[in-house]
Amino acid sequence: MQHLLDIKSLSNDEILQIVELAKYYEKNVVLGTQKRKNRGSVALLFFENSTRTRFSFEMASRKLGFDVFNFEVQKSSLLKGEGIFDTLNNLNAIGCDIAVIRHSQEGFIENLSKKSYAYNLSLINAGEGKKSHPTQALLDFYTLTKHLGSLEGKKIVIVGDVIHSRVAKSNIELLSRFNANVVCCCPSYFEDWSLENASYEANLEEALKDADAVMGLRIQKERIDTKIPYAQYINDYQINEKNLPEKAILMHPGPVNRDVEISSSLIDSKRGEIIIEQPRNGVFIRMAVLDLIFEGVQR
Amino acid sequence: MQHLLDIKSLSNDEILQIVELAKYYEKNVVLGTQKRKNRGSVALLFFENSTRTRFSFEMASRKLGFDVFNFEVQKSSLLKGEGIFDTLNNLNAIGCDIAVIRHSQEGFIENLSKKSYAYNLSLINAGEGKKSHPTQALLDFYTLTKHLGSLEGKKIVIVGDVIHSRVAKSNIELLSRFNANVVCCCPSYFEDWSLENASYEANLEEALKDADAVMGLRIQKERIDTKIPYAQYINDYQINEKNLPEKAILMHPGPVNRDVEISSSLIDSKRGEIIIEQPRNGVFIRMAVLDLIFEGVQR
Amino acid sequence: MQHLLDIKSLSNDEILQIVELAKYYEKNVVLGTQKRKNRGSVALLFFENSTRTRFSFEMASRKLGFDVFNFEVQKSSLLKGEGIFDTLNNLNAIGCDIAVIRHSQEGFIENLSKKSYAYNLSLINAGEGKKSHPTQALLDFYTLTKHLGSLEGKKIVIVGDVIHSRVAKSNIELLSRFNANVVCCCPSYFEDWSLENASYEANLEEALKDADAVMGLRIQKERIDTKIPYAQYINDYQINEKNLPEKAILMHPGPVNRDVEISSSLIDSKRGEIIIEQPRNGVFIRMAVLDLIFEGVQR
Repeated sequence: MQHLLDIKSLSNDEILQIVELAKYYEKNVVLGTQKRKNRGSVALLFFENSTRTRFSFEMASRKLGFDVFNFEVQKSSLLKGEGIFDTLNNLNAIGCDIAVIRHSQEGFIENLSKKSYAYNLSLINAGEGKKSHPTQALLDFYTLTKHLGSLEGKKIVIVGDVIHSRVAKSNIELLSRFNANVVCCCPSYFEDWSLENASYEANLEEALKDADAVMGLRIQKERIDTKIPYAQYINDYQINEKNLPEKAILMHPGPVNRDVEISSSLIDSKRGEIIIEQPRNGVFIRMAVLDLIFEGVQR
Repeated sequence: MQHLLDIKSLSNDEILQIVELAKYYEKNVVLGTQKRKNRGSVALLFFENSTRTRFSFEMASRKLGFDVFNFEVQKSSLLKGEGIFDTLNNLNAIGCDIAVIRHSQEGFIENLSKKSYAYNLSLINAGEGKKSHPTQALLDFYTLTKHLGSLEGKKIVIVGDVIHSRVAKSNIELLSRFNANVVCCCPSYFEDWSLENASYEANLEEALKDADAVMGLRIQKERIDTKIPYAQYINDYQINEKNLPEKAILMHPGPVNRDVEISSSLIDSKRGEIIIEQPRNGVFIRMAVLDLIFEGVQR
Repeated sequence: MQHLLDIKSLSNDEILQIVELAKYYEKNVVLGTQKRKNRGSVALLFFENSTRTRFSFEMASRKLGFDVFNFEVQKSSLLKGEGIFDTLNNLNAIGCDIAVIRHSQEGFIENLSKKSYAYNLSLINAGEGKKSHPTQALLDFYTLTKHLGSLEGKKIVIVGDVIHSRVAKSNIELLSRFNANVVCCCPSYFEDWSLENASYEANLEEALKDADAVMGLRIQKERIDTKIPYAQYINDYQINEKNLPEKAILMHPGPVNRDVEISSSLIDSKRGEIIIEQPRNGVFIRMAVLDLIFEGVQR
């Protein structure tokens, strides 16, 4: 693997290879003790704020024994009018092997992947626009298969702000590839009808029927201009102790708006535990991705 | 030890254990060469600006071979409306073992210590409100005993902005526990009459008589609304070559307002050397605290 | 070597020693794998924004196995009114061996080098005012000798914003020391007549005649108050496929203003490759400088 641009660019075999390697890291790495001989250098360039994803990549890099360099994108010499390609090419020349990028603009990372870098730079998409967040989808896939086994025919219900969620889009794409039955449930103002591979069910009770997994989505306030009718949303779409089916596992990409998408008491109960397992699994997935990408190219 | 919340929560035995371990690190660690097998991960969350204390914890962590993660609290997903507990719980899930926190609000860290974290997070108070800064008191205790031996009956004079100083409060608590005779000396507008275990003497000459140690305090301009009569303060309370008793050692938590709390010439003289030894001792104390906390809990 | 303040303070022998060590690192360090036994601690204090130079020093430090501490100078306790010397003395006490400093003011670093630090602090100039940027000159010297061999009598043409460029000043000083024939070429508003050791030729065609190396300079927009007549500048002074002599190598300290100082197509051609080799060489040079300075003083 040279880059990780989106789910589409990964074959099913590659996805399963990532999962296998993540499993290995979960079992064999005492967190905080792993050091490898070959040390990659990872640059983090987050054009949108992030604590969790950035920290997760940083932790995964360190656990692999890689060096991590955090760039404050606002302060970089981008300010000096230099294009992002020239910056990346320079970071690469200085010794950066992998650039982990988050950006608000769709296609930003793919465009950069088409350029020719002096010393074989790899790019990883850490969240792009409203469309793709592949490592989040991979960690959700990892978490789902850990708890449900094969996803063949499993009903996975995604509840909430579908249209603004890159997590939803990447998940739908990946989960449907493994023949899960993905159902989206949201008010009309959160629907995205351009999606393939997902059906819609507006009624929450109906949607949750026989669900194997329920995935709440974060309402992306920062990407929404209009006012959300929160009281109505909570009344109609909040996941809570009453409506969560007994056999279903509960997930959320975080950070949760407590008592909006999910009731606070449900989050803090036994059934909320997988929500906090997800970020932990994310480290193993990102170790696997970084490892495969670092080893996949002559440097 | 699971957390370090304040001096009160430490027994005398624990304090002496920290001091012993700090001594070990002072003797056996060539600065910059130590690596341990078990590698903890330390997150630094400073809600107030700090260069020294933050750097000291960072250095101590690196010397123990721990990974350190610096969070810019202003930019974190706290901005996304997530509560601090959820953030910490997530950092913990991702692999953070210890969170070092500075905050302006008293009780902030203790409140967080009562929560239940998914993977056994430890908290360290790196300065909180106007009341507590336990690692500073520990390093001052370390420095004092190094130069004075037992503090039993020793006269330690604390001069300056007592009321706004968390350094003073934690020091008074700790030093009086080891039976030092702690005397505070300051103008009335810096007095804090709620303090136990310290006497006041408004006259500097009187206060300094027979002192074994004199500790200047930084005037906490950033926590003071009203105007300080500096000329008068300097005239009445500045420590300088004339009034510092011959046998007394001179300390200051830094950063010093030169020629205010202490005359610049005194700082730069032989007698000012302990002021620059204090931050060095701080690294050994923080190594000891981090080590005991990391080893003290199953992770 | 205790400090690296400027080119003037280096003997020719020291320069050649740095180059030899950089060569060693280029040959023997698989980027990203090197660890040394003695671990220095390097603090980066950049009072002016920088991505490349800062990252280069960070990478060089990590490759030597040194710890690196990035200070956000704006947020430091300098804000608390503490002078830079007291801050540095403290960082030194806490464990910092080498401070790498960039500052807009000439003489800033030399002044600091005259102070007496508690634990033998070394200072490295990472760019100061409009006058000196010694590690850039060293890496350019390294790059030039790699491609041209001895610089004795070689014609090196520096084109562009000479007056605002610390890169130009340090290069002229260093290259003329090794008997290169340094010619500056620029419009009158970029001339600096106080320079020794360089001749001027206003006409680009004339200047480039028989050049062995052509070094474009970045127009330092951020240090220029008046408006630059860009169209005229580009017409008269842009380096491009037509005017670059066949035997000359092409260099630029970066970041390039594409299609201003150099045509974009020339940068992206085979002949532009050395521009991206320069930052790579910079890592080896900075490894050599850090190494010699760390080993050169008892710590």
